[in-house]
Amino acid sequence: MKQEILHQNERIDKLYSQNISIIQSSEVFSFSLDAVLLADFAKGPSHQNGQLIDLCSGNGAVGLFMAKKTQGKIKMVELQERLANMAQRSVNLNHLNDRIEILNYDLRKISNIIAKDSVDVVTCNPPYFKNLTNSKKNQNPYLAIARHEITINLQQIVAVISDLLKMGSYAYFVYRTDRLLELTKYMANYRLFAKKIRFVYPKPGKSANLVLVEAIKDGKQTGLIVLPPIITYDSDGKYSAEVRKMLYGNYFPG
Amino acid sequence: MKQEILHQNERIDKLYSQNISIIQSSEVFSFSLDAVLLADFAKGPSHQNGQLIDLCSGNGAVGLFMAKKTQGKIKMVELQERLANMAQRSVNLNHLNDRIEILNYDLRKISNIIAKDSVDVVTCNPPYFKNLTNSKKNQNPYLAIARHEITINLQQIVAVISDLLKMGSYAYFVYRTDRLLELTKYMANYRLFAKKIRFVYPKPGKSANLVLVEAIKDGKQTGLIVLPPIITYDSDGKYSAEVRKMLYGNYFPG
Repeated sequence: MKQEILHQNERIDKLYSQNISIIQSSEVFSFSLDAVLLADFAKGPSHQNGQLIDLCSGNGAVGLFMAKKTQGKIKMVELQERLANMAQRSVNLNHLNDRIEILNYDLRKISNIIAKDSVDVVTCNPPYFKNLTNSKKNQNPYLAIARHEITINLQQIVAVISDLLKMGSYAYFVYRTDRLLELTKYMANYRLFAKKIRFVYPKPGKSANLVLVEAIKDGKQTGLIVLPPIITYDSDGKYSAEVRKMLYGNYFPG
Repeated sequence: MKQEILHQNERIDKLYSQNISIIQSSEVFSFSLDAVLLADFAKGPSHQNGQLIDLCSGNGAVGLFMAKKTQGKIKMVELQERLANMAQRSVNLNHLNDRIEILNYDLRKISNIIAKDSVDVVTCNPPYFKNLTNSKKNQNPYLAIARHEITINLQQIVAVISDLLKMGSYAYFVYRTDRLLELTKYMANYRLFAKKIRFVYPKPGKSANLVLVEAIKDGKQTGLIVLPPIITYDSDGKYSAEVRKMLYGNYFPG
């Protein structure tokens, strides 16, 4: 089974907390803690007919992790054929074909195949880095596109998300703290308002590196809630209890 | 001495960490932890001829606390005569008349007496609440003006601060978390960009209630730093070690 489903230099990792197996490749793409944090933070649609869309899906980690938390259908959109193919094989591996559809498609044209104002929840882990000529772009083209704003930039992503969402529906982002105010500015330009924010600090006494954002389309512009901090590693270098639980659930290692 | 300097129903409280005595009145105005947090967070001018302006000064707590951290001159601007008078008597009490000047003046007209583009650092603890007819305004008119946007609103305050500051100079705010994105929006409209933010959580596991913001005039719009969280009270209900140090310095109670 593993031999058929895996291509060269791929492996299967497991998110124990959700009992999800996921095809990874250090040459192409592996999910990071960011995907786990986003899937933990996001709330799925509140009804069975709800539609959740995950954008910039990579190898499908966020949508796969969300599948166990939610009842509705999930579509994942990924531009890179190689990554979309990995995601599809992970969907097969987890027997989630009736729940999850992989769309190997250009986000900028997504309204050709997903109706505007039709989506209940969007999750997105956008490329983190601007496509500057002097930025240290990853030499690996798969990782370069996943991490840098080469094929789409943050403003374009926010505009697409706003187009897709119904009024009063939710978007969830994981993003770098240092660009948070760009994100909230674009969100406000496209009718998305942050309702809840949660910062992720790598260890006690350090500045945050990641931020989780819950936004509502056409929501009130006031009343931001900044949830309790997540600390990734304890001062002894081990995952904090909260992060261990996200990763391992009841398989709680020391 | 106390009899001469105190008016009816006033008392003298002490910020032990800075060895500052401050005239308070539960009927009129008392500083809160917010002022201590702001003075701890803010950096004074980096040179002796620098000018620090504290706006919305109340009974002068922030400026008095900053006096021990900085070498330059400090001006405090307070609209309410009764509060400005308390602040002036606290300045006298601490023998800081050569360092601190109290201006009982309307912030909206402050450029009549302080030149635009002349100030090195501004600190401000603005009124927190919108002046809505249905908001639970404080019946006490002193506190109502200090806490609600009755005489000036957030956008006007940010505009004044931007006018006063030199290019590349700093503003420091303490504000309610739920209005943070209004603050950053107005700041961006008036050429102030957040560089560092620090959230204050009342106790472990609770959402933040206050935020400290360092902004620079005409600074870069990226690179936000979210500093480690401040937790006000430990889970046992006592001030955390960090807050105890802000309040008591080396007079460290249990």
